[in-house]
Amino acid sequence: MSVSIALVHYPVKNKNGNLAATSVTNFDIHDLARTARTYEVERFYIVHPMPSQKEFSSRIIRHWSEGFGSQYNPSRKTALEITAIVDDLSDVAEDYEARGKTAPVFVGTSAKKFPHTIAFGELRKRIEKEEENFCLVFGTGWGLHSSLLEDLDLMLEPIEGVGNYNHLPVRSAAAIILDRLLGNRQRDTNYES
Amino acid sequence: MSVSIALVHYPVKNKNGNLAATSVTNFDIHDLARTARTYEVERFYIVHPMPSQKEFSSRIIRHWSEGFGSQYNPSRKTALEITAIVDDLSDVAEDYEARGKTAPVFVGTSAKKFPHTIAFGELRKRIEKEEENFCLVFGTGWGLHSSLLEDLDLMLEPIEGVGNYNHLPVRSAAAIILDRLLGNRQRDTNYES
Repeated sequence: MSVSIALVHYPVKNKNGNLAATSVTNFDIHDLARTARTYEVERFYIVHPMPSQKEFSSRIIRHWSEGFGSQYNPSRKTALEITAIVDDLSDVAEDYEARGKTAPVFVGTSAKKFPHTIAFGELRKRIEKEEENFCLVFGTGWGLHSSLLEDLDLMLEPIEGVGNYNHLPVRSAAAIILDRLLGNRQRDTNYES
Repeated sequence: MSVSIALVHYPVKNKNGNLAATSVTNFDIHDLARTARTYEVERFYIVHPMPSQKEFSSRIIRHWSEGFGSQYNPSRKTALEITAIVDDLSDVAEDYEARGKTAPVFVGTSAKKFPHTIAFGELRKRIEKEEENFCLVFGTGWGLHSSLLEDLDLMLEPIEGVGNYNHLPVRSAAAIILDRLLGNRQRDTNYES
């Protein structure tokens, strides 16, 4: 049983809420791969249906996994070993099946509240039971497009900050969510310093 | 009483552990400003002593605060309102004093364990008491250089992931640390979904 993450570049929303595709960025790939690796996430799926964008992603990954970069910065190589480039979430499910695993429960993330969201504590418990696989789905741009929501099994409750400002970059949101769901209880300890 | 953050570009370590200065990046500024704003951090100090880098930082901030960007994406403007560009941590202390506040307790962050670190739970309690100001200090590059450590009052315990991999990007580490220290207890709730 395991947790994976998927970073969706299509279908997402643009600034006006309309259907859009975003470009893959170097920063997203490295940040999410490193964060995922830190929390022992099993796979980091880069979701993009466009061949040119898939080729760009795989060039970045190859550079750091095999090329000059793998010598220069081995910790990037280790992080990127868990990445996979796929067209859509059905490819994610297929990748699970190809590895003899049950398809994951797809859990969407959003800055907005949905009617049926799962709370952090609740999802953490289900993960800890180790009876199901989970794939946390993150949107680039202005978030996951509504047409993708029907492919999801659950929506995670949004991260509440302290005030009303609610515009976390996806890189930061993913870090906070992985820490809340998978991090040890270190944050709650109170041992002698 | 308040919490601020400082992103140090000098003195930091390079790959070999030697003294170095890093370049300011667009991504760091936006990600940290947004995350800071989400957790109602009072100020985000960009620490760099080089005039050209300070000028570059202030150009980015001006673009999104006053220029075309402030119309195009107002949430960036709101985030960047809390940024300030300073030479070093003594400028941070001065900024507090100029605003009639007590200089903050400087709390360094690192992926390494130091002999006298403060635990997350402990620091969270001190913040909640509202008797002191705090400035969380993050290093770019390969982390804060030892020469800066004497300017710090405390070191925060490192984030432990799940396994041994320990190379979080500073943008992700800052997000996780702010959530652990300032986030509400949402992560622990277990209400009906």
